[in-house]
Amino acid sequence: MPHPISQTIYQALADIELVDPHTHINPHAPASKSLADLLGYHYYTELAHSAGMPKDQIEDDSIGPDELVARLVEGLWPIENTVQYRWFIEICRKLFDVDCRTIDSENLETITAAAADKFASPNWADTVLSRSNVRAVFLTNDFDDDLQGFDTAKYIPCLRTDDLVFHLAKPETRQRLTDCSGIELTGSLDSLRSALKQRFEHFTASGAKACAISLPPTFEPQQVSDGRAETAWESVLRQGILADDSHHTALSRFVFWTLAELCDEFGLPFDLMIGVNRGVYESGVFQGQDLYDSRVSLIQYKALFNAFPKVTFPVSVLASVTNQELVSYAWIFPNVVTNGHWWYSNTPSFIARDAMARLEAIPQTKQIGYYSDAYKLEFVWPKFDMYRQVLSNLLAEHFVGFLGWSEEQAIALGHRVLRGNVEDIFNIES
Amino acid sequence: MPHPISQTIYQALADIELVDPHTHINPHAPASKSLADLLGYHYYTELAHSAGMPKDQIEDDSIGPDELVARLVEGLWPIENTVQYRWFIEICRKLFDVDCRTIDSENLETITAAAADKFASPNWADTVLSRSNVRAVFLTNDFDDDLQGFDTAKYIPCLRTDDLVFHLAKPETRQRLTDCSGIELTGSLDSLRSALKQRFEHFTASGAKACAISLPPTFEPQQVSDGRAETAWESVLRQGILADDSHHTALSRFVFWTLAELCDEFGLPFDLMIGVNRGVYESGVFQGQDLYDSRVSLIQYKALFNAFPKVTFPVSVLASVTNQELVSYAWIFPNVVTNGHWWYSNTPSFIARDAMARLEAIPQTKQIGYYSDAYKLEFVWPKFDMYRQVLSNLLAEHFVGFLGWSEEQAIALGHRVLRGNVEDIFNIES
Amino acid sequence: MPHPISQTIYQALADIELVDPHTHINPHAPASKSLADLLGYHYYTELAHSAGMPKDQIEDDSIGPDELVARLVEGLWPIENTVQYRWFIEICRKLFDVDCRTIDSENLETITAAAADKFASPNWADTVLSRSNVRAVFLTNDFDDDLQGFDTAKYIPCLRTDDLVFHLAKPETRQRLTDCSGIELTGSLDSLRSALKQRFEHFTASGAKACAISLPPTFEPQQVSDGRAETAWESVLRQGILADDSHHTALSRFVFWTLAELCDEFGLPFDLMIGVNRGVYESGVFQGQDLYDSRVSLIQYKALFNAFPKVTFPVSVLASVTNQELVSYAWIFPNVVTNGHWWYSNTPSFIARDAMARLEAIPQTKQIGYYSDAYKLEFVWPKFDMYRQVLSNLLAEHFVGFLGWSEEQAIALGHRVLRGNVEDIFNIES
Ligand SMILES: [Zn+2]
Ligand SMILES: [Zn+2]
Ligand SMILES: [Zn+2]
Repeated sequence: MPHPISQTIYQALADIELVDPHTHINPHAPASKSLADLLGYHYYTELAHSAGMPKDQIEDDSIGPDELVARLVEGLWPIENTVQYRWFIEICRKLFDVDCRTIDSENLETITAAAADKFASPNWADTVLSRSNVRAVFLTNDFDDDLQGFDTAKYIPCLRTDDLVFHLAKPETRQRLTDCSGIELTGSLDSLRSALKQRFEHFTASGAKACAISLPPTFEPQQVSDGRAETAWESVLRQGILADDSHHTALSRFVFWTLAELCDEFGLPFDLMIGVNRGVYESGVFQGQDLYDSRVSLIQYKALFNAFPKVTFPVSVLASVTNQELVSYAWIFPNVVTNGHWWYSNTPSFIARDAMARLEAIPQTKQIGYYSDAYKLEFVWPKFDMYRQVLSNLLAEHFVGFLGWSEEQAIALGHRVLRGNVEDIFNIES
Repeated sequence: MPHPISQTIYQALADIELVDPHTHINPHAPASKSLADLLGYHYYTELAHSAGMPKDQIEDDSIGPDELVARLVEGLWPIENTVQYRWFIEICRKLFDVDCRTIDSENLETITAAAADKFASPNWADTVLSRSNVRAVFLTNDFDDDLQGFDTAKYIPCLRTDDLVFHLAKPETRQRLTDCSGIELTGSLDSLRSALKQRFEHFTASGAKACAISLPPTFEPQQVSDGRAETAWESVLRQGILADDSHHTALSRFVFWTLAELCDEFGLPFDLMIGVNRGVYESGVFQGQDLYDSRVSLIQYKALFNAFPKVTFPVSVLASVTNQELVSYAWIFPNVVTNGHWWYSNTPSFIARDAMARLEAIPQTKQIGYYSDAYKLEFVWPKFDMYRQVLSNLLAEHFVGFLGWSEEQAIALGHRVLRGNVEDIFNIES
Repeated sequence: MPHPISQTIYQALADIELVDPHTHINPHAPASKSLADLLGYHYYTELAHSAGMPKDQIEDDSIGPDELVARLVEGLWPIENTVQYRWFIEICRKLFDVDCRTIDSENLETITAAAADKFASPNWADTVLSRSNVRAVFLTNDFDDDLQGFDTAKYIPCLRTDDLVFHLAKPETRQRLTDCSGIELTGSLDSLRSALKQRFEHFTASGAKACAISLPPTFEPQQVSDGRAETAWESVLRQGILADDSHHTALSRFVFWTLAELCDEFGLPFDLMIGVNRGVYESGVFQGQDLYDSRVSLIQYKALFNAFPKVTFPVSVLASVTNQELVSYAWIFPNVVTNGHWWYSNTPSFIARDAMARLEAIPQTKQIGYYSDAYKLEFVWPKFDMYRQVLSNLLAEHFVGFLGWSEEQAIALGHRVLRGNVEDIFNIES
């Protein structure tokens, strides 16, 4: 049973207009155009596959969007218990105005019709934003994105750097970097540094508010001497992905460290999303192949956090078992802040325990409560709402019930982690 | 305070007839014959020892069953707070019809008399099964068990393979394998493969529904080439346990991989119980010596899960910190399902958090809620009942309270994880 | 909402006079003399720093105590949500009789005046003890402490051995050992052994009740042969901290093992506080630089626990993810007992889950519920009170609510973990 005043707090939090500090929204097609855009989200395809649907019944080119939806709807009943399923139902209820508890062959037609109506309405994306009480969302932009053709006050650019740190050995990555920066990548480190810096100039000039990267559990940032980095760079230029592992590691560290230096120079927070192993399930569906090794420690980031006291690092951890380290590092390091509840830790019971551990021990100014990680705008609302419900309960039980705070104080804390800190940490105008 | 409708749900779950998918019951002596059989369970001897009873007061050959019970009863008061103690009290109340809260010198005579009455009654084992609402239990059979002389519909065989994977270097293990399979183990891998296959034929012909193994935290399954395996096999045949560690590892991996191939061929699920270190407390009582290193990851099983898409792997993890990985791997891999709450994670608070994390994120069809791991039938009931109570609370609070499900829906989910999935996953007739 | 009878249990627990089994109290100045003594506690300086106050505004020699308090009070609002802040407020309310919810520029004068009044009162330290219902506190004494000039029944000596195990390579440590023991440290191991033994004689003669040490996550106790130890000792004597790492490790292990032998000989429990990495945040404030790597396992202590069955090891773990191992090792090993909730795990949500896991599975006689770790007496009360509130809830919900215990039984269990076990395990007269 939720605490009795949890509901009051929830209402107050629902009234807060949000800025979502991390999504994968495409600003040129932010909202869905069909149910296939929603049910094609990897959470549904991977769970339907995990529950028994063969991959070739989900991903074959011959499958049209209506057919995909029909198949998935048939394959989704085993996941009715999951919170991921719940997100979709909440979209139907909140955004499509369909009063359903499930999606199945009986109500599929109704839902499809209602959704089609909405998709066809003028400015559906803006409607979704406004009904979700969302002012702006952060994007995840490739480093060579031209950032043209959208409103950067509403769709806030963020420089995603995985390719630069981990895939510079691929000729196509280097070509993309040269093409967008206009800088020839020679054997000298200067050319690489200049190209990276040019990207920061481009992104910050276009309103970018963060640099971001996801990192495998084995990664350990270290400063690499120029001599060592040059050797690695030359080797990678010569041999590409066939270069020795030690060169890949050295180059990854060099590029990562250079990005941190540029974050320092350009005043950008550097979002670290720590812990993912890519491609663990090799035959999984698209975006449903990544898992992790929870044996990771923030001690691996000791050198980084010490070297860049002026760079703010919003840190996400993939496994809840790393959350206590995150709490402790954010408690001690001024430049480490906690950032949302990521991926496999983004389910109610993990959110509840991880958020509580943060709220009771870290300065309130150093906690970014949540981000949706959504690929389509429709998912921002149900995901944030899941968080809001968990948060309301924690505020009601611990802060009001246990500590004797007033409702107003509890709501103020909720406002801070939901909205205020996003503005302060990412330097967004309120 | 439990959620108000938790009790209704509990009642409905208690009415479900169970199939217990993992026990160590001896089908030739499934129920206890004396209180010593119950209090001699390692949970009581190891806890009494941990609380101060010297081992030689528990295990000396000169100690008769009555004497052992008298001693243990005296040594058990320090564990009255534990859930393990609670299991025994529940047996007294439910099966012996004694209304007690403790067992002590004052009521020992009463309990002994009541129990003796029951033990002497005709068909006590069947009475226990029926009062516990249990239809059948899985066994843990040595690979050379002849599986004769018991009703395999009630006592379902399961091929336990620890000895084959980890102790084939011992001459007695190889002798047992030769004796039961009728196949001479020569230096050729074929002989070993044939003997293993013969065991699968024997077990499946006798109604076995699973293959099972417990694994140390360091184990990492890998396919081993025939050449490498042959070298290892020859070395082990020649040197036994004195063979080089690398050969032991290679042979373990080869046998394990071969078992997985046979599970594939014979359509048996392969229960993996991951994480135990044997013999950590060298002077501990019988079965009270094993502990673990919680630094284990399912990434160690990446190759296995990818290589055998058609084999179902019901996975148990020893440490609750591994539960989130288990949730995530079961969420992504179609062939990974969660299996019960094992040993040191089989206490209410770990069950509650681990079960909740599963229920909110994994397809409902991929969760085997519980197994008792019991050595005597009497323990099936109190252990399952502990789980039922935790589960009822989660269903009431999260699914009915938070998600707005009906009681019927919640009970249906409970039925599935308690019974339905056991039938479906292990191919048991309902 | 707390369970209704949680409050009754809380009251009963608050009436229990405490012996605090681990603090850093200075017996020559046990209570605070100014608010700077309280707000100078590393929890406030490190959190204020983490929330944005530059270190040089906290630690410069030119900053007087009033100025420090004024600055910190200004810098503390971001941590009003934290439990560490709560400890201070509880001190104001309970010990200074100021009815406040925050400390800020508006009420600073009031609090300062009220506190000054108390600090100036005769026997303030004894008043704090009596208002906190505390009979005695354990100290943390340097190995060369003369233990003179205080009442060892109230301030119980404890031999802290970090310097001996980890800093014997520093000439000043060896000099201190020679000076206090009167034994010349030559290249022979005997001189070192004799000096260590002399310290045990001195400490036990002065009423010491425990030996204690904090250990990094990498430490793995092992017995070292005399030959190996001698080589290490000679090398360290010759080269000091420049000696090879292998020699430092061997010497640390030798000294640690010798301390365990002395604990055995002198009948002292050996407190192990496992998991801290010192100096991770190099520019942090005083005592605000230490963090950890949660990838530690008690399997590292297998040899130790097996070798010293007669030494009691009260074990604290820094990270909550190690708590389940601690529960399991205390469940199996007679000589392992759980000890309090240490440092980064000393916040309500971690205490709740870690304490519950212990209460449901470990003999009640093997759990030391809590220690304050306080540097000043004033903090003993609010820290223990936080624990008492969490404990009352667990006793009410699990033992009374779930198991049907009476209030009296639940209170008796609370008494045992709060007080009875401290007496029994550390051999304190009741
Ligand atoms: Zn993302
Ligand atoms: Zn078992
Ligand atoms: Zn301490």
